[in-house]
Amino acid sequence: MKRLGEINGVLIDIDGTIFRGDQLIEGAKEAIEGLASSGKKILFFSNRGNLSRRMAYEKLMKAGIHTTIENIILSSYVAARFLHTNYPKKSVWVLGEDGLVEELKEADIKTAKRPEEAEWLVISLHEHLTYVDLNNAFKAVQNGARIIATNSDKSFPSEEGEAIDVGGMLGAIEATTNKRADVIVGKPSHFMVDEALKQLNLIPEECLVIGDSLGSDMAMGELFGFSTALVLTGGTTGEQAEKYSDKLDFILSSIASLITTD
Amino acid sequence: MKRLGEINGVLIDIDGTIFRGDQLIEGAKEAIEGLASSGKKILFFSNRGNLSRRMAYEKLMKAGIHTTIENIILSSYVAARFLHTNYPKKSVWVLGEDGLVEELKEADIKTAKRPEEAEWLVISLHEHLTYVDLNNAFKAVQNGARIIATNSDKSFPSEEGEAIDVGGMLGAIEATTNKRADVIVGKPSHFMVDEALKQLNLIPEECLVIGDSLGSDMAMGELFGFSTALVLTGGTTGEQAEKYSDKLDFILSSIASLITTD
Repeated sequence: MKRLGEINGVLIDIDGTIFRGDQLIEGAKEAIEGLASSGKKILFFSNRGNLSRRMAYEKLMKAGIHTTIENIILSSYVAARFLHTNYPKKSVWVLGEDGLVEELKEADIKTAKRPEEAEWLVISLHEHLTYVDLNNAFKAVQNGARIIATNSDKSFPSEEGEAIDVGGMLGAIEATTNKRADVIVGKPSHFMVDEALKQLNLIPEECLVIGDSLGSDMAMGELFGFSTALVLTGGTTGEQAEKYSDKLDFILSSIASLITTD
Repeated sequence: MKRLGEINGVLIDIDGTIFRGDQLIEGAKEAIEGLASSGKKILFFSNRGNLSRRMAYEKLMKAGIHTTIENIILSSYVAARFLHTNYPKKSVWVLGEDGLVEELKEADIKTAKRPEEAEWLVISLHEHLTYVDLNNAFKAVQNGARIIATNSDKSFPSEEGEAIDVGGMLGAIEATTNKRADVIVGKPSHFMVDEALKQLNLIPEECLVIGDSLGSDMAMGELFGFSTALVLTGGTTGEQAEKYSDKLDFILSSIASLITTD
């Protein structure tokens, strides 16, 4: 286990770690300021695929957390980068929200006119989903579109408790088309890690991942050789953390605890 | 293989067999009249869980097809009967439409005030589904509700081609809760067969199942010892039918073909 003093970069999850819904978690802002003022590079690093980086930037700034768009890595952005790099001429159909559409536009990815014509279906969290949206995504895949999902989290911490996440949308499509997602970019995948390390210009053992999810944040940290700090302000209970504790470097009641542990 | 003359009861699927969406399939009405006038008992027999029997009755009557409510067996009705018989004091949460709610009311099943309080989640096709509906169903199951699905069909034949069915809604919940449906009442299950035989007062070998689905209509027919007639007006192509043909008694381009085969 590393001491916090040996860490040069911190990858901070957003939902359940800094915010609960739109509510800033008490002490989060101060903890992040403390990390930054001790010279650590800070990256905001989230599986949220329904926001664009610009939207996340505005949300952070509004809460008094200063950063730059480049220091925010979201699965919406990473999905758009994947398509831009590997399939720049293909058209997509989106099961997702404005933030994802914004990132796809930024990456010059074009949208098919009809779901049947799309070569990729891009799936993200869609909190305004309707049956028609689900059916269009189904049609795209039935007609041959491959599936890229921003992430496959089962739930995310909303202000009213855990809420169904992309795993639900993806589950609906997979169960009815007999297809599996071809690409899932979100944590714990290497797609997110690659973008993060490129931006930080550090290697994993210099970095700490702070997050609330065992399945995405901690699993990624463990697999890729980051130090890990689990916070209990999101989707993981102390009891669940306990079972997994031999694989974690820190278990914190909140990111706010970091102020006093350094 | 039986001749049609040896058949005393006919179980007729509705979607893809009599209707495509709201459109009556040409010759369906006359074929059904022909069967009825040759003395066969007719049962309308559908996995549609978003309609009540009253609604299906009105739809049939409007199309000029005469029947009684008792001679319509829908998965919404059968799900409500299951709960009425086995769990009459439990409260449910519904991921479904008015027709299902109507059947549950008819069976004196009470609805929980909040999803977290429900002891059963009842899932059906929901063509006006929103994210909030999906999330409430997720909450019910996360808080311990068991799952009863009217059916688990992946798609149904709508006027605009195959559309995503209950399998999608169920897939979303199963993928995010790590639970499986406890009860699926629709064809090819015995729940539907039991209700049908009770109403017809016949045994399977006296009956013919007419439907467009290999997975529900034909699989049920084969498993329970009915004669089977596949129609190609719905979800099954001639090519698919061909592969399965040694397990079917009849393959018909449409239910309308029955007029001339007897």
